Amino acid sequence: MKTRAKSALIMAPLLVIVFLGGYFLVAGVVLLTVFALREFCTAFGEKKPARWVLWTSLCILYACFFIPGFDSFVLFGFWLFASLVLCFLSMFAVEKRDLAQGMTTILGVVYIIFLSFHIVLVDNAYGGSDIVVGVFRFSGLDSYVWLIALAAFGTDIFAYFTGKAIGSHKLCPSISPKKTVEGAIGGVLGSVLLCGLFGYFFIPGGLATCIIIGVLGGIVSQLGDLSASVMKRKIGIKDWGAAIPGHGGILDRIDSVLFTAPLVFYVLAFTEAFGSL
Amino acid sequence: MKTRAKSALIMAPLLVIVFLGGYFLVAGVVLLTVFALREFCTAFGEKKPARWVLWTSLCILYACFFIPGFDSFVLFGFWLFASLVLCFLSMFAVEKRDLAQGMTTILGVVYIIFLSFHIVLVDNAYGGSDIVVGVFRFSGLDSYVWLIALAAFGTDIFAYFTGKAIGSHKLCPSISPKKTVEGAIGGVLGSVLLCGLFGYFFIPGGLATCIIIGVLGGIVSQLGDLSASVMKRKIGIKDWGAAIPGHGGILDRIDSVLFTAPLVFYVLAFTEAFGSL
Repeated sequence: MKTRAKSALIMAPLLVIVFLGGYFLVAGVVLLTVFALREFCTAFGEKKPARWVLWTSLCILYACFFIPGFDSFVLFGFWLFASLVLCFLSMFAVEKRDLAQGMTTILGVVYIIFLSFHIVLVDNAYGGSDIVVGVFRFSGLDSYVWLIALAAFGTDIFAYFTGKAIGSHKLCPSISPKKTVEGAIGGVLGSVLLCGLFGYFFIPGGLATCIIIGVLGGIVSQLGDLSASVMKRKIGIKDWGAAIPGHGGILDRIDSVLFTAPLVFYVLAFTEAFGSL
Repeated sequence: MKTRAKSALIMAPLLVIVFLGGYFLVAGVVLLTVFALREFCTAFGEKKPARWVLWTSLCILYACFFIPGFDSFVLFGFWLFASLVLCFLSMFAVEKRDLAQGMTTILGVVYIIFLSFHIVLVDNAYGGSDIVVGVFRFSGLDSYVWLIALAAFGTDIFAYFTGKAIGSHKLCPSISPKKTVEGAIGGVLGSVLLCGLFGYFFIPGGLATCIIIGVLGGIVSQLGDLSASVMKRKIGIKDWGAAIPGHGGILDRIDSVLFTAPLVFYVLAFTEAFGSL
């Protein structure tokens, strides 16, 4: 528990990054993505993805994002098409590469690069009040990016303690033997509680949206966790890495964030489109 | 050769569909996609994708497309996120499914559903003069969708005959032993010729764009062909299917189209954005 507490401190800089928002957050997300990709590649051993494709795909995505005034749908489609073509090109070295490697490369592109990019999208579109200090703009405390973290980590923590306290019915023993139904429900309630409190104090006008995000985020957060468990179990590893003592790798830490980030973005985008954010 | 000629007739209805455009083309593309997905699934044998994920992903994509007035970037991102979550959900049956199956499912989503959808995108945005007959609107002969077919099949045919006539330097014997450098160059020239003629007669204002598409289309068309060869070689099959006698399966016929369709769409979108279509 002491190691875990120490490791939690390592995550503290992330809070500062969410507060700062903008380019700081982009830099932070890129850094996290790079570390996650490295762990992802290492974990696959022999069947490891083509690294150069992943790095190029990452560069294209963020370069597209910074072209101003362009239809983002076109850029986004272009990025996925270009990444896919690169994946295939990497397979042209037929003697060297397996079909599985082509597929793990595509998985790296969509699972890590695409999903983590939604943190940037949320900050960009729903990044809060933009506190201006000199030439800098900060996202501040009313940025919706906080919900990504609150839903993910709130679910994690509440599920853990609820499961410990009253857990008795196994949730899905074949994937994750320790998880219980009670823990899962506690996790969702915890996510709703934290997201609701956040909405109440920082975005009163969007309280209903925050609560909806709390419910759905609590669910997909656990799906994200279980999805990672399935992959790790199939690869035959316990953790993706060992970057954070007591917590496994970076990717182990953000597996639920990879699912809550898109969820937050699409709930906000749909709410905005249907007129009641 | 006689079987091939007969089979070419089977492809004729596709010409009518391109001419009609609109909902007819959507229906045609969906049908092609469904057949291609079926062949794709069958080809993988034991490691076959989760079919229900592919069907659901296809439905979500086309449903999103028909929501009017919505930011297509959001819908598109949502579709990819939802498809990815479904892929992972299909893996939750850990005893039943392999990691490879999760990855072939994702490959099916991006390689077949995503790429073939660009035919609809081209028709939707650059579908020609919209001939109105009663309640119907037809895309006609000046639809840019024709370029998708001209680049793909033009390259194919010209590469084949140039290679036969003067081919001597092997292009990439480890992937496709019969292909020659001369054939590849002839293919690109053929694509430029056909796309150029098409532009000259039907879209004079966009002749330069048509020629650019001819050049790039001639290249990516062959990359599409080689990418499919790599996959088939790795899986250990010669053809994806046997739907069209003498031509293999539907997927064998459209493997270059899967690459030229996005190319045509992004070249047109970029040209439009930079102001000189």
